[in-house]
Amino acid sequence: MRPFPVLAALLAAAPIAATAPSPAEIEAAAPASAFAAVPDADLLLLELANGRLVAIALNPAIAPAHVANIRTLASAGWFERHAAVVRVQENYVVQWGAPDPAALLAPGVGPVAGGYEAPGMPAGFRALPWPDTYARQVGHAGGWPYAGDGKAHWLVHCPGMVGVGRDMPPDTGTGAELYAVIGHGPRHLDRNIALVGRVVDGMDALSSLPRGTQALGFYATPAERMGIRRVLLASDLPEAERPRYALMRSDSPAFAQWVAARADRRDAFFVRPAGGADICNLMPPVRKMSR
Amino acid sequence: MRPFPVLAALLAAAPIAATAPSPAEIEAAAPASAFAAVPDADLLLLELANGRLVAIALNPAIAPAHVANIRTLASAGWFERHAAVVRVQENYVVQWGAPDPAALLAPGVGPVAGGYEAPGMPAGFRALPWPDTYARQVGHAGGWPYAGDGKAHWLVHCPGMVGVGRDMPPDTGTGAELYAVIGHGPRHLDRNIALVGRVVDGMDALSSLPRGTQALGFYATPAERMGIRRVLLASDLPEAERPRYALMRSDSPAFAQWVAARADRRDAFFVRPAGGADICNLMPPVRKMSR
Repeated sequence: MRPFPVLAALLAAAPIAATAPSPAEIEAAAPASAFAAVPDADLLLLELANGRLVAIALNPAIAPAHVANIRTLASAGWFERHAAVVRVQENYVVQWGAPDPAALLAPGVGPVAGGYEAPGMPAGFRALPWPDTYARQVGHAGGWPYAGDGKAHWLVHCPGMVGVGRDMPPDTGTGAELYAVIGHGPRHLDRNIALVGRVVDGMDALSSLPRGTQALGFYATPAERMGIRRVLLASDLPEAERPRYALMRSDSPAFAQWVAARADRRDAFFVRPAGGADICNLMPPVRKMSR
Repeated sequence: MRPFPVLAALLAAAPIAATAPSPAEIEAAAPASAFAAVPDADLLLLELANGRLVAIALNPAIAPAHVANIRTLASAGWFERHAAVVRVQENYVVQWGAPDPAALLAPGVGPVAGGYEAPGMPAGFRALPWPDTYARQVGHAGGWPYAGDGKAHWLVHCPGMVGVGRDMPPDTGTGAELYAVIGHGPRHLDRNIALVGRVVDGMDALSSLPRGTQALGFYATPAERMGIRRVLLASDLPEAERPRYALMRSDSPAFAQWVAARADRRDAFFVRPAGGADICNLMPPVRKMSR
């Protein structure tokens, strides 16, 4: 029983010849000009109680008031006084925030309305040519993944994206409770929660945490929670100590090559290229930079 | 700044009224007739060295010879003598197999050709009505997620799906090296690797393992590997000791309700339903059954 005798015969007749650079090779070879540094004031640094570091690039384009709250809370030392990782739900999210809901927020920080989408399409938006299950258009602008319908655009829930937890009513998120997506992109959350950034380093420090056993992956006991030693902005550090990351520019030739290679794999392993790639499999490459 | 004043005004005028059962509520309320038990001979049980259990439903529909190899290796005790978890790559796969490539396989077990797709469309296939980035059609048959183009069909790389590792040339997989998908569905692997099943319990025992630090997420040292204490088929156990799982039948009314609710969330949290759902966000629910 041969599921595809024609292809098998072709492969037997001629070994695969048409190899091409892999996406990883294109990424490694891309010039510095293909990357744009994350501004220090947009780089949120999270140090877990086990010493692991997580770096998050903030994107204030869609939810600027939420991002302003997060900056205030971080620079005020609020997270390290009040927050812990309280929830890890398999194939969904890792969430950190205040286990004590009565914990006072920093002055001026309260619930924020909206932040789910912005009008029009983002400047420099480049749409992908393949259909998306969730939106009329998906693509990239400024090194970020967006969806839109011409009238509005929004960031998309892909692995590593960071959003603002909220209660049942909309407009109840503050930024004091954040989550990062693990697992398959829960795109049904798009336009229902404010997305504010993306984990650019240390994602596995979150995704490999033990899953919580309570409903929605909450930990059953305080002892299970992973503590948070420090949360601050890179701009809060002395300049020489600031880590630095860059996102591949979505208007660079290298990015176009990388997208094409991800969509149509011709490197040696692949028998049959997909001919397309979805937005969550096209998260712009990140490069760690020295200062 | 209100990104969608019209919706905000509507919500202010009338609190959300149109709530409906959530997908989880539909799943919990579904009758026993909406589920079909995984046959004992198709239930692969994996016990890790830390005592955690993983249950995998095998599906021999697309790669029957690979599944036959896996059954032979399991019942011969091959995995527990030779295999360990050797690779955990963030947002990609957890892989287990023989760290010693010279480990002898069981008699009759060697590389298998094909197993990437099967002709026609599966019996009872129900296509989803929403576009998919990777295939002409996606949908379900017999409690499994498939893609196809009318001429052929194949299982899809979604979180929890289990495939057969292979070397660069196709047709080099044996079943002695398996992986489970973690992270966003790497659908570009569809039709490039033989998929043989799905983790139906204990997924987090794999997905929360530490990521390997070498290329492709391989562990740097043998000490980092998670050992495997036992791999066998449920049918190898005395009947009273066999765990039992069932997949929601994709031809049941409950499944149709569940798909509709996943695609168009009307439960209380949601402000704006997506109006669609992709195949990897529609993995049929699993129910653990007593004997």
